[in-house]
Amino acid sequence: MTDSLENWRRTHYTKNVKPEINGEEIVLMGWVHEIRDLGGIIFVLLRDRDGLIQITAPSKKVSPELFEEIKKLKKEGVLAVRGLVQESGKAPNGVEIIPEEIKLLNESKLPLPLDTTGNTHAEIDTRLDSRFLDLRKHNVSAIFKIKSRMFHSIRNFLESRGYLEINTPKLVASATEGGTELFPITYFEREAFLGQSPQLYKQMMMGSGFDKVFEIAPIFRAEEHDTLRHLNEAISIDVETAFTDNEDAMNILEELVCKAITDVKEHCEDALKTLEVELEVPETPFKRVTYDEVIDIVNSKGVAMRHGEDLSRAAEKALGEVMDDYYFITEWPTSIKPFYVMPGFEDPEKSCAFDLMYKDLEISSGAMRVHQHDLLLEKIKKQGLNPDSFSRYLAAFEYGMPPHAGWGLGAERFTMCLTGAKNIRETVLFPRDRRRLTP
Amino acid sequence: MTDSLENWRRTHYTKNVKPEINGEEIVLMGWVHEIRDLGGIIFVLLRDRDGLIQITAPSKKVSPELFEEIKKLKKEGVLAVRGLVQESGKAPNGVEIIPEEIKLLNESKLPLPLDTTGNTHAEIDTRLDSRFLDLRKHNVSAIFKIKSRMFHSIRNFLESRGYLEINTPKLVASATEGGTELFPITYFEREAFLGQSPQLYKQMMMGSGFDKVFEIAPIFRAEEHDTLRHLNEAISIDVETAFTDNEDAMNILEELVCKAITDVKEHCEDALKTLEVELEVPETPFKRVTYDEVIDIVNSKGVAMRHGEDLSRAAEKALGEVMDDYYFITEWPTSIKPFYVMPGFEDPEKSCAFDLMYKDLEISSGAMRVHQHDLLLEKIKKQGLNPDSFSRYLAAFEYGMPPHAGWGLGAERFTMCLTGAKNIRETVLFPRDRRRLTP
Repeated sequence: MTDSLENWRRTHYTKNVKPEINGEEIVLMGWVHEIRDLGGIIFVLLRDRDGLIQITAPSKKVSPELFEEIKKLKKEGVLAVRGLVQESGKAPNGVEIIPEEIKLLNESKLPLPLDTTGNTHAEIDTRLDSRFLDLRKHNVSAIFKIKSRMFHSIRNFLESRGYLEINTPKLVASATEGGTELFPITYFEREAFLGQSPQLYKQMMMGSGFDKVFEIAPIFRAEEHDTLRHLNEAISIDVETAFTDNEDAMNILEELVCKAITDVKEHCEDALKTLEVELEVPETPFKRVTYDEVIDIVNSKGVAMRHGEDLSRAAEKALGEVMDDYYFITEWPTSIKPFYVMPGFEDPEKSCAFDLMYKDLEISSGAMRVHQHDLLLEKIKKQGLNPDSFSRYLAAFEYGMPPHAGWGLGAERFTMCLTGAKNIRETVLFPRDRRRLTP
Repeated sequence: MTDSLENWRRTHYTKNVKPEINGEEIVLMGWVHEIRDLGGIIFVLLRDRDGLIQITAPSKKVSPELFEEIKKLKKEGVLAVRGLVQESGKAPNGVEIIPEEIKLLNESKLPLPLDTTGNTHAEIDTRLDSRFLDLRKHNVSAIFKIKSRMFHSIRNFLESRGYLEINTPKLVASATEGGTELFPITYFEREAFLGQSPQLYKQMMMGSGFDKVFEIAPIFRAEEHDTLRHLNEAISIDVETAFTDNEDAMNILEELVCKAITDVKEHCEDALKTLEVELEVPETPFKRVTYDEVIDIVNSKGVAMRHGEDLSRAAEKALGEVMDDYYFITEWPTSIKPFYVMPGFEDPEKSCAFDLMYKDLEISSGAMRVHQHDLLLEKIKKQGLNPDSFSRYLAAFEYGMPPHAGWGLGAERFTMCLTGAKNIRETVLFPRDRRRLTP
């Protein structure tokens, strides 16, 4: 039998229970992390979102009924405790709780399908199958506290710069980049697709005069990749700014990255400590390396790469050995970038596109965009795409489209940079990949 | 021929050009809203995101070349102007710009498919077809400035209360509520669906110990509805809190609504004025009306409604005549609410579910949830659903699920309340409905 919550409410999280409130009566709620029954005294470690606290029940100090109740507790049961804070040099945080009353709000079946103490190593698939248990480990939840804070800092930064948040549709009639990597969906009697990027929509918004927009939303890519850096559903942080070029776009991006890192360092001290991550705020401006220089670096490391090729994984790794912080790759060949990327003004073969890298990981792609209707139409045709599929998009370029630039930053990849996670699945609560659709 | 942006950058938005900066040289960028050529003097109204400003070009004061350039301007061309601020009692904001140099950054085809001055009435479908032009009207963009601010205030409020932002998958293997209203998708060789609600995921997160979570993300519903209040893709503001009940959930919801209204009033003064909306911060606690009382009110207005029925549109309207602000409907019959809703503790036929209404519009649904595994299983079976489809969800209830409660607030419906929009499509940049999948 379990108890009802009734009028009990948590008064403190464990992390806020400090020697300063010695003697206060408080209510804590959480999970039974560990129990040590020494006969005349029982120690219960109670775990909540932010920490652990010791509940100390000496048979001499608590009523016999309560002592029996505590004796019966089992691991991972949901427990509410009303008790007194007592300073204690021996207890983990310098405080322990002497219980006066408890409620067992729910029980847990045993054994658990996954160890929640983190003492037993488990494969990522086992962990993801029981993700709700996996997330009880503080070194797992730490990643998501950081990710949550990252979103918060990014939005605050963009808001302070006058950016408006927009929501663009995820159900779309045609492909963004003509890609084959779309999930088809049945939309009533029609075929539709899941948006792989808000690219065309944020550009149309530039034609609306909204000027500075951002969107943080899911994107869907039917890529067959099965790597530590790809997902089929991810969160993209998209920014687009009118009356700016690629240099402005890089400036705002590097400023945003630094702001987010500064803010996470300040607000997620515990989570970073749990993960043993020491974040450094990078210096600005970030290094700029041209695509041609990248080829030289990669080749010098003995990895083959020819002009006109994208970076292979081996090339990224070779590059990451030399470049060990955040940096931009600029002057990408126009030929290997999407149709909406502006060709360079001096040399049209060198585009106004850039990638933001962290060591060997690409975390953002951006560019100044083509804003001239005729050039855009020509480039769509040149890439073998059907302009009819882009008619609504192209229309926006006929009636006063300003010059504009922007980028998309992968939220999960950036979270990897902030948390040191090596597998992108570590940064998603319920990841979706080629093989995984549950939970 | 159009000009390049080069090193020109906007120094001011029109709304920041005030008599106090009389004599300053500034750079403005925007669209040609109107031109009046009086022969010896040309007036150009320049429009940007936040306003309009008059550019005054007297032939005696500007160079002949510049005068010719200005003479050739056409409506909705993209214009950058470098010029001097001049106080002027006659100009709309008490200031005008005497141009020194201009750049025509892009042209607009004429005639426009949609009037951007707002003088000509256009049907919603015509407007949505050319949404990028429609959004140039300040009374249309005002809605989205308010929506953007609403999201910002809601997130800030939740963050200040210790809520963590989460992202749950939109690609799901099975139905949330067993619903028939799901869009099917082809996920590699499998069938999957688009999430109609993060309900099951945010509940699983309660089992993870995250305690207080929120998500603001798209939801997808394959409803055939074609009304002024339904969309097939919408944004849901979802909140879930462990160790709380429905009363706590209502409290946090009404506080959030008041905070958002207060904040929008403070930060969106211009947008609200443009829309001629006078927002009032409602008093808390919001009125609570039980389901049984609702039946009486509805019947008293001559609209038929029997116990065990959901509110028909006619019933909502009848209710809205009596209740003219925000209010909760409580004590819904357990029988007409989803399986995850907690039955009442005193009378299990009366559930712990609530709806938040604004006049005749339902804007949020919430409840204390069932946290007991066996009761949940029983309720899933009772609703004729297959427990096997819910195995991953049910597992989370076997290993220590705390009591919890939460709600989902429709972002677009709440935006209707904030902006006075009568058609939900007005509150979405690119709406998706039964008939519309573009742009």
